[in-house]
Amino acid sequence: MKADSTGLRVLSRAECLKLLASVPIGRIVFTDRALPAIQPVNYVLDGDRLVIRTTAGSKLALAVRDTIVALESDVFDPAGRTGWSVTVIGHAHAVPEGRGEFSRLVRLPLAPWTYRNGERPDVRDHYIVLPVEQVSGRRVETYP
Amino acid sequence: MKADSTGLRVLSRAECLKLLASVPIGRIVFTDRALPAIQPVNYVLDGDRLVIRTTAGSKLALAVRDTIVALESDVFDPAGRTGWSVTVIGHAHAVPEGRGEFSRLVRLPLAPWTYRNGERPDVRDHYIVLPVEQVSGRRVETYP
Repeated sequence: MKADSTGLRVLSRAECLKLLASVPIGRIVFTDRALPAIQPVNYVLDGDRLVIRTTAGSKLALAVRDTIVALESDVFDPAGRTGWSVTVIGHAHAVPEGRGEFSRLVRLPLAPWTYRNGERPDVRDHYIVLPVEQVSGRRVETYP
Repeated sequence: MKADSTGLRVLSRAECLKLLASVPIGRIVFTDRALPAIQPVNYVLDGDRLVIRTTAGSKLALAVRDTIVALESDVFDPAGRTGWSVTVIGHAHAVPEGRGEFSRLVRLPLAPWTYRNGERPDVRDHYIVLPVEQVSGRRVETYP
């Protein structure tokens, strides 16, 4: 078992990708007016990249156009004091409506949590693609 | 109901603080060698500040000495598509062992998840204090 300096087990890239694919929600980290910002997003793992669905014109869409961002996913069990966390870092790019790639992204299993399709025709989708360039993960286990 | 542009309900400061206090784990956002970084931490709400316990010499302890950071907590129910997220932004400062304030922080109900007390005498505690300067929160609810 490979552990870091604080006693957490270090996960392999394969373990990280499997865990990333097992949950629908992550948190994207970006900079908003020079301050650190973090926002929950729903995403899918699409091969070796993450696809994040957001809303055109949102703060997230405006901040993350062509920049290095992090996305973190985790699951913790406070009672058992176990859990895992995986973080991806990569150069994100936006895919607004109208671009060729958009039509493929729309077919991914990535439903919005807020408005259902058709309920708010004025809300337009916007996708963020984040290649899994760097990935790291840790698991908290009972210390032997 | 006050909602943002993506249909999420905007939470008041009082609601945010109550939710923050209801979970033991959050995610701290900082910069590590010019890249966005995020790491789960356990914390307690101590009046109008968050107290985070970490390990002396860790990447987090080294990066967050006297800097503006964000801490996010959330709970989501993927099945029901409900949940909330709260983010605090403030000017964090470190409280290493030996400083007067340290003896008070040690008595907070803030147990480490990795090593239990006494198991690793070479691992020294280190606290980060984050005043709740800005707090914002959103709740996902079924759209009426």
